Amino acid sequence: MFPRSNHLIGLTIMASTLAMSRAFQFGTRLAAVSSSSRTRASQVMVRSPMFISSSSKTRTLSRRFMSTAASLTDEQKLELEDKIKQKGDEIRTLKDDGISKDDLKPHVAELLELKAQLDPSSVAPKRKKQQQQQQPKKKKQNQQQNQKPTNDDAESDYITPRAENYSRWYNDIIRVCDLADDSPVRGCMVIKPWGMSLWDSIKNDLDARIKEHGAENAYFPLLIPKSFLEKEAEHVDGFAKECAVVTHHRLTADPSGEQGLIADPEAELEDPLIIRPTSETMIWHMFKKWIVSHRDLPLKMNQWANVMRWEMRTRPFLRTSEFLWQEGHTAHATYEGALEDAKDMLTQYADMCEKLLAIPVVKGAKSPSERFAGAEETFTIEALMQNGWALQSGTSHFLGQSFGKAFDVTFQDKDGKQQDVWGTSWGVSTRLLGALIMTHSDDAGLVLPPRVAPVQVVVVPIPPKKNDEEGKVALNDALDNLVADLKSKGLKVKVDDRDYVRNGAKYFEWERKGVPLRIELGPRDVKGGVCVFKYRVGSEGKETVNLDEVGTKAAEGLDNLQEYLLDSAKERLAGNINMMATYEQMRDALEADEASEYDGPGLYLVPWKCDAENEDKIKEECKATIRCYPTDVNEAGMWEGKKCFYSGEDATHMALFGRAF
Amino acid sequence: MFPRSNHLIGLTIMASTLAMSRAFQFGTRLAAVSSSSRTRASQVMVRSPMFISSSSKTRTLSRRFMSTAASLTDEQKLELEDKIKQKGDEIRTLKDDGISKDDLKPHVAELLELKAQLDPSSVAPKRKKQQQQQQPKKKKQNQQQNQKPTNDDAESDYITPRAENYSRWYNDIIRVCDLADDSPVRGCMVIKPWGMSLWDSIKNDLDARIKEHGAENAYFPLLIPKSFLEKEAEHVDGFAKECAVVTHHRLTADPSGEQGLIADPEAELEDPLIIRPTSETMIWHMFKKWIVSHRDLPLKMNQWANVMRWEMRTRPFLRTSEFLWQEGHTAHATYEGALEDAKDMLTQYADMCEKLLAIPVVKGAKSPSERFAGAEETFTIEALMQNGWALQSGTSHFLGQSFGKAFDVTFQDKDGKQQDVWGTSWGVSTRLLGALIMTHSDDAGLVLPPRVAPVQVVVVPIPPKKNDEEGKVALNDALDNLVADLKSKGLKVKVDDRDYVRNGAKYFEWERKGVPLRIELGPRDVKGGVCVFKYRVGSEGKETVNLDEVGTKAAEGLDNLQEYLLDSAKERLAGNINMMATYEQMRDALEADEASEYDGPGLYLVPWKCDAENEDKIKEECKATIRCYPTDVNEAGMWEGKKCFYSGEDATHMALFGRAF
Repeated sequence: MFPRSNHLIGLTIMASTLAMSRAFQFGTRLAAVSSSSRTRASQVMVRSPMFISSSSKTRTLSRRFMSTAASLTDEQKLELEDKIKQKGDEIRTLKDDGISKDDLKPHVAELLELKAQLDPSSVAPKRKKQQQQQQPKKKKQNQQQNQKPTNDDAESDYITPRAENYSRWYNDIIRVCDLADDSPVRGCMVIKPWGMSLWDSIKNDLDARIKEHGAENAYFPLLIPKSFLEKEAEHVDGFAKECAVVTHHRLTADPSGEQGLIADPEAELEDPLIIRPTSETMIWHMFKKWIVSHRDLPLKMNQWANVMRWEMRTRPFLRTSEFLWQEGHTAHATYEGALEDAKDMLTQYADMCEKLLAIPVVKGAKSPSERFAGAEETFTIEALMQNGWALQSGTSHFLGQSFGKAFDVTFQDKDGKQQDVWGTSWGVSTRLLGALIMTHSDDAGLVLPPRVAPVQVVVVPIPPKKNDEEGKVALNDALDNLVADLKSKGLKVKVDDRDYVRNGAKYFEWERKGVPLRIELGPRDVKGGVCVFKYRVGSEGKETVNLDEVGTKAAEGLDNLQEYLLDSAKERLAGNINMMATYEQMRDALEADEASEYDGPGLYLVPWKCDAENEDKIKEECKATIRCYPTDVNEAGMWEGKKCFYSGEDATHMALFGRAF
Repeated sequence: MFPRSNHLIGLTIMASTLAMSRAFQFGTRLAAVSSSSRTRASQVMVRSPMFISSSSKTRTLSRRFMSTAASLTDEQKLELEDKIKQKGDEIRTLKDDGISKDDLKPHVAELLELKAQLDPSSVAPKRKKQQQQQQPKKKKQNQQQNQKPTNDDAESDYITPRAENYSRWYNDIIRVCDLADDSPVRGCMVIKPWGMSLWDSIKNDLDARIKEHGAENAYFPLLIPKSFLEKEAEHVDGFAKECAVVTHHRLTADPSGEQGLIADPEAELEDPLIIRPTSETMIWHMFKKWIVSHRDLPLKMNQWANVMRWEMRTRPFLRTSEFLWQEGHTAHATYEGALEDAKDMLTQYADMCEKLLAIPVVKGAKSPSERFAGAEETFTIEALMQNGWALQSGTSHFLGQSFGKAFDVTFQDKDGKQQDVWGTSWGVSTRLLGALIMTHSDDAGLVLPPRVAPVQVVVVPIPPKKNDEEGKVALNDALDNLVADLKSKGLKVKVDDRDYVRNGAKYFEWERKGVPLRIELGPRDVKGGVCVFKYRVGSEGKETVNLDEVGTKAAEGLDNLQEYLLDSAKERLAGNINMMATYEQMRDALEADEASEYDGPGLYLVPWKCDAENEDKIKEECKATIRCYPTDVNEAGMWEGKKCFYSGEDATHMALFGRAF
């Protein structure tokens, strides 16, 4: 039922990256016999064999690498490339400044024109899109069509197709599928019940893992004295900049009568407090009190909490001023103990993403400049979104002794000597909901892996005719049995028996909300002892199922769907890690992606000499950052004997570059 | 095994208050034949028959009502009473100003002297206590003794006996049993894992009830624009006064270099934000967006969140600036729908307290002056603490249309007309942990009802001699089987096999932490095929149990213990509702309680004419407040035909008066 490419079954990301490792060697050889000229760049770019051999149903991205053409001199090309880059930069700045779509159009047209001069094929998809847009609008036919609104209506039910505008699609999904809503407070969102239940599922799954990991839940104050932030030098730089500062503890009527309530000048705090952006400082302050002897170690605590970072540019779930997360903090007697703890937790995060959310991730270490403020090493899981961008989905920090020393936390070891304490911290947040949306969902709405879906099966009973009393009784009996059967398999079931909504509208609504399986049950089905299954994705058409097999079939089908979603996502990830690109190839590819907002360039796994300055330059030149030094390829020493793709010096790592949310 | 007074089995609070109702009639008759002179006040005070007929093992409170003596003239007595009142007021003020225990002593001595003149028996317990304190301190003998520290050491393991200082006992329990810790932020506490797991148990139980009630979880922003607070007139008075005000969104280095970081003057918010003290305003702002038609109603939402109220005097769990809670908010098409919702939720709270926490409560309505700011009716559950004070443990508000109108939330009814929306809100908080502590715990530490205990059974294996390899294998096998058996009954088990802690110290520690059942298993037990059970409370001594019956016996024993704790608490509650006291009796009794901090006066159920001014006067005169108008006795019309105990006018309610945390 669920087509899966055979070679992927049972493969993990570890296996995928080992396969990449083979591809890399293959790529090296291929590169050696190919021209190294920049104009033929795309020919030597080697995709992971995962992708190449795949009979994937998933969308094929980055088709542009398949075509290339040029009849310009190298000098003309360089000049054009420069202009393209300049125009790209200009467009980025305009976008950042919030330019309207219409005002942006001439700039995009200019960019496309430049690109067409360099490579006429590069604008083809864009033209197609413009044609689509020029089609006359259809009349409103019925409710359940995805009607494009005539204006930018925040209340509209319309979902912008991904290929048209990926960002807008993302926002539409969140609004239309009732995941979250804008709040009246800048950068803060309201998480609605459908979104909240996804977070609650993640919480339940992860809470058990955290306890298994040996950490206990606790709760630390929301407010942190500002002096705490000053204790760890790097930490203050990282977090003091943008944070909510509480300066008063009372409102009072404005004596001038102009402003209603004002912060009462007489209730000003001697020392301002800040709303926690993260709790290392508070927790290490308490650790000092609690840690005396080696017997108190390891000490592992976790809290589920809200935190606040005053973000200037926010996007629901991905970057909001306030967000929900868990933050684990541990203290250890040894370097090894702490390092292992940080790595273990990353593995838990990766496993949770894969098993629960069907999101494959790349595990790795951050480059020094991307580390958490105060950490000696930051480990990360990076997921690939459908537009080819990466999303950092969870981090785990090996803090060394930085916080232990900053907060003077020592312990007496077995020999009676005072020693400094080693630490870690680790967290995932509601950002994972962004990852979930952008891994599986489509133009029709949300797609939810069954294990995380708040409703796994929606049953839509189709009522008999008004006078058919016998039929009503039979339908209700069949419905009761069917629901009981599904529940006996532990499935989360909802019966949609609203009498004021038409069946078609119900189907449409639950599809949009991502419910994995819909079951239709009508009077004729009941007579025939059957019902009809329709999966949200993964299988075409409807399936007729005997009523006495409903529970078993549904449980089986949902298991398969879960696997199918994970396999599809793995395939996309493997297929989108570009291997052996030169720096120029990467830069051009990213640049070429500028005008379109979907169908992006993916990730670049390259030999790299660790260098913060070069990293900055690359970030400036093409907005790509090092997502991580992937653990497996680096542990396998894949960088050995290779030259850095940017500096040409001896490589020290394999680095995964990409654009990121 | 667990002694329970027969007449209490199966009785609910409803039954208890019905019994009180009978007692009330009985009391009325008794009062009629007794003298009404104030000097013989205590003779005519009628306790609930629950208490009188009880063969209770629970502590008998308020013994002072049993004795009375006087050879003074009425005038002398009145004068003495006045002096006692004045001294009591003075002591209260001194305490509020944070006077030290030593400085307070002469004042207390003076008060006791006055009381001794009025009634020599009143100071007897105090003398006894002073004798105890004068005993020479014993040498430190071993770890597990409850050693009184030589000074007020915040790190000490000492638990002050309740009779000596109830407040200190409460704080000691919280510190020594690892429930919470002071934080560096004024009025905010750190909830430690043992305390947090209690809250998590409450959360799990209640979350299921809330969903059953039809509400869904969501999450609303922490920060609220101050203008929102201004919209509901009463609400602003209730909550704008003391709240944390966010005025800046950035810290920056102090240009003068004096202060390190300061709130950046350039990052001042145009409109300050406040940290939510409760979320009605934010949620009704969103409701306006979400509610259009009668089909959107009822709309029921709940959030688990932190809130902040800038409290001047704080006590862990009972009153902290930041606390954790759930807040439910519902919107309805009709008056009846909203009112029923508020009442239903109160019933859920009461049931959760009773079933999970073994805390019986009195359900009732608040008097107008004690209502939530903006509510038309506030329902409450009131629990009785061991010192005779009440603790408001949960509230549910019928908001009428106040927030609907303030936020302009309307819906289109079935006939197409626009209607105002009715609302409720309801919540319980980490305050419940205070109720839990002060309902069951004793001088030896925490006592936890099994259903809420993070660890229900602690198993302490007693290792064989060093060379007894065979014995070790046998013990480990027996231990594994025993744990498996316990877990198969769904029990939460912990094995304490720390080799650096002596058995006695382990027993002591787990008793303090309130683990309901300890099982000891030694080599000799294993040979005999038995182990030893010791319950935290409710049964004397140890019990030998066959190893093949461990799971069944433990499950049964813990069920009985749960019931025993509830019965004991019910008995205390019923026994401490004083019926038919005159106002003067109540005032004197409360006054008499001033110098001792334990063994308090309990609650007073009296006929009352609802009157805010008189309520204020009583509050001022004897610090008693109306805890509620209990639902059952008021619905039964018990106040009918009675005169208000204060004004002498026709009663409108039966009111439950008492001191409260």
